[in-house]
Amino acid sequence: MKKHILVIPGDGIGPEVTTWGKAVLEKIGTQFGHSFTFDEALMGHAGIEATGSPLPEETLEKAKLSDAILFGAIGHIKYDNDPSAKVRPEQGLLKIRKELGLYANLRPIMLFDELLDASSLKPEILKGTDILFFRELTGDVYFGEKKRSEDRNTASDLMIYHRYEVERIAKKAFEAAMVRGKKLCSVDKANVLEASRLWREVVQELAKRYPEVETEHMFIDNAAMQLVKNPKKFDVVLTANLFGDILTDEASQIAGSMGMLASASIGDGTGFFEPIHGSAHDIAGQDKANPLASILSVALMLEISFGLQDEAKAITASIDKVLKDGYRTGDIADANTDKSKTLGTKAMGQKILEYLD
Amino acid sequence: MKKHILVIPGDGIGPEVTTWGKAVLEKIGTQFGHSFTFDEALMGHAGIEATGSPLPEETLEKAKLSDAILFGAIGHIKYDNDPSAKVRPEQGLLKIRKELGLYANLRPIMLFDELLDASSLKPEILKGTDILFFRELTGDVYFGEKKRSEDRNTASDLMIYHRYEVERIAKKAFEAAMVRGKKLCSVDKANVLEASRLWREVVQELAKRYPEVETEHMFIDNAAMQLVKNPKKFDVVLTANLFGDILTDEASQIAGSMGMLASASIGDGTGFFEPIHGSAHDIAGQDKANPLASILSVALMLEISFGLQDEAKAITASIDKVLKDGYRTGDIADANTDKSKTLGTKAMGQKILEYLD
Ligand SMILES: CC(C)[C@H](C(=O)O)[C@@H](O)C(=O)O
Ligand SMILES: CC(C)[C@H](C(=O)O)[C@@H](O)C(=O)O
Repeated sequence: MKKHILVIPGDGIGPEVTTWGKAVLEKIGTQFGHSFTFDEALMGHAGIEATGSPLPEETLEKAKLSDAILFGAIGHIKYDNDPSAKVRPEQGLLKIRKELGLYANLRPIMLFDELLDASSLKPEILKGTDILFFRELTGDVYFGEKKRSEDRNTASDLMIYHRYEVERIAKKAFEAAMVRGKKLCSVDKANVLEASRLWREVVQELAKRYPEVETEHMFIDNAAMQLVKNPKKFDVVLTANLFGDILTDEASQIAGSMGMLASASIGDGTGFFEPIHGSAHDIAGQDKANPLASILSVALMLEISFGLQDEAKAITASIDKVLKDGYRTGDIADANTDKSKTLGTKAMGQKILEYLD
Repeated sequence: MKKHILVIPGDGIGPEVTTWGKAVLEKIGTQFGHSFTFDEALMGHAGIEATGSPLPEETLEKAKLSDAILFGAIGHIKYDNDPSAKVRPEQGLLKIRKELGLYANLRPIMLFDELLDASSLKPEILKGTDILFFRELTGDVYFGEKKRSEDRNTASDLMIYHRYEVERIAKKAFEAAMVRGKKLCSVDKANVLEASRLWREVVQELAKRYPEVETEHMFIDNAAMQLVKNPKKFDVVLTANLFGDILTDEASQIAGSMGMLASASIGDGTGFFEPIHGSAHDIAGQDKANPLASILSVALMLEISFGLQDEAKAITASIDKVLKDGYRTGDIADANTDKSKTLGTKAMGQKILEYLD
């Protein structure tokens, strides 16, 4: 197979972790006889610094021409505390999602047995948890009109959904449920929000076409609670952009560490693969970041964009083995971790390559 | 002290639990020599059934004339799955919040030592957690304009904040922080939302007036995560209506059970006190509901609306003792609970009265 992959390292720890995602892709290419070619482009704070834009025109062009995108992380503290900044790193990410039509964000919450103890949840609550989130990614209050009054005293964002937007992601979620546990939980706030009432209507209608899927509707406040109380009860979770942002981060901690979770954004064209974690500027450049989420993003890419199941499995198997042999990065190390097996970014990346043999 | 209290039982388990809240108030009145008088009124599904309105005019009038309101719960499954219903129980709650100017919703997350094991979080993560949430309650996407297109294919809600709305609740939160741990975490999504950017601006400005308070700003996705990871790190949490709805429910589970948490809504006039839990129709009328959140709501009322600290303490002390003696309702019982000490609503209410002696 011949594929062209665009790497967008982004900000903070992005460059460090994508280095290892890319290295794993190269190795898999060699091992399985695929020809993977690579290009690189800027986004976020890195894009602003170099070109003034968080999504340089060139990046978008390269993105459209690639078969898949491996992304690192975005954001910079400098903008976070300046509410009046006009240009922000995150705009790059939001724009590329919109431009590439990446309306479905898939976030699998999977647990590595070895890491059960890394979670703040009790192992018995956690064990057996296997959730696949479908977060809508190009609508909602993220993309509705934003306004600030002239006197700057009033600010608003429009939370808005169109029927087709709900339909297309709901369809993907139902289809996934059919090949998984046949359970789907749609999360909204239909007791208060009109956008949620449309959401619920559409999901209810679609549910009729998937009678085998046990469909449940849950309010977001309750879902945020149930996720901590009994994560095992969820199979496929379908939700809007904002609620999905919140729930998946919450779920990532349930899974032990954000450093272990990857996500796939798909839709009309090129797929986009990234860790769930952010730019983590506090540890950037210090060889401390966990590269496993980026490496798992590559596994998702192989599986979802290229249909290469065996290659994806080779990656997760090697991660499994590395963890079983006791190796950890700082974020997933605990009192039982052998000090000599606590690795930096590079050593962990290297370890995975080694175990891939 | 002479006070007139309006009891609004509401829907589901509401009537069962407020019965015991009221009984505790009466007992405290006798013990401490206060004259508490009571009236009762309808709201929610109960209001719709009786009058066609989720907030009958008479209820609002009685509310305005009372010194404090003890509320039960709201909501009915019948409306939840009918996204096109025009009249809904929740409208009653939203309207009374708005009409009474209840812009600040205080939700203390406090742990009873005896219940540490009831949480899905590890006891060592939990121990020492003591959070006071300030949730804005009369603005945000809850009250912004709602629209549905004529073809019914597009739906929207306006997320909107005015400077004065943020200011008045932020001030209350900073003042609370001053008499607590002097830490305040303001939660928003300023990297994406204009309303959040106004929110952050206002909180940043106000923070200058409280230099002793260590102020932090956190994105909602990160907050949802940190709350599971390390709840101890929070002291006062200040946030908008929607984010507060989500975070406080999540936090309630961290605390072991929703059945143990009360909330106070305050602002321009009469204070409004209610459990965090909902109407729980699945167990309504079965003598299964935990009345402790309603009883704790009464403790909050005594403390916040009437300034009666000792009376409030008498209530929490008696709950503490009842728990120490091993009594539990079903929701907080575990494998170690003596079967004969697992109580229904009535028996638990009775037990608290008994221990108040
Ligand atoms: C960086 C930010 C704009 C983004 C989002 O809110 O979508 C991030 O939190 C995510 O979840 O991908
Ligand atoms: C019943 C509902 C409208 C309400 C809300 O969302 O505010 C409830 O969840 C709460 O938190 O008080």
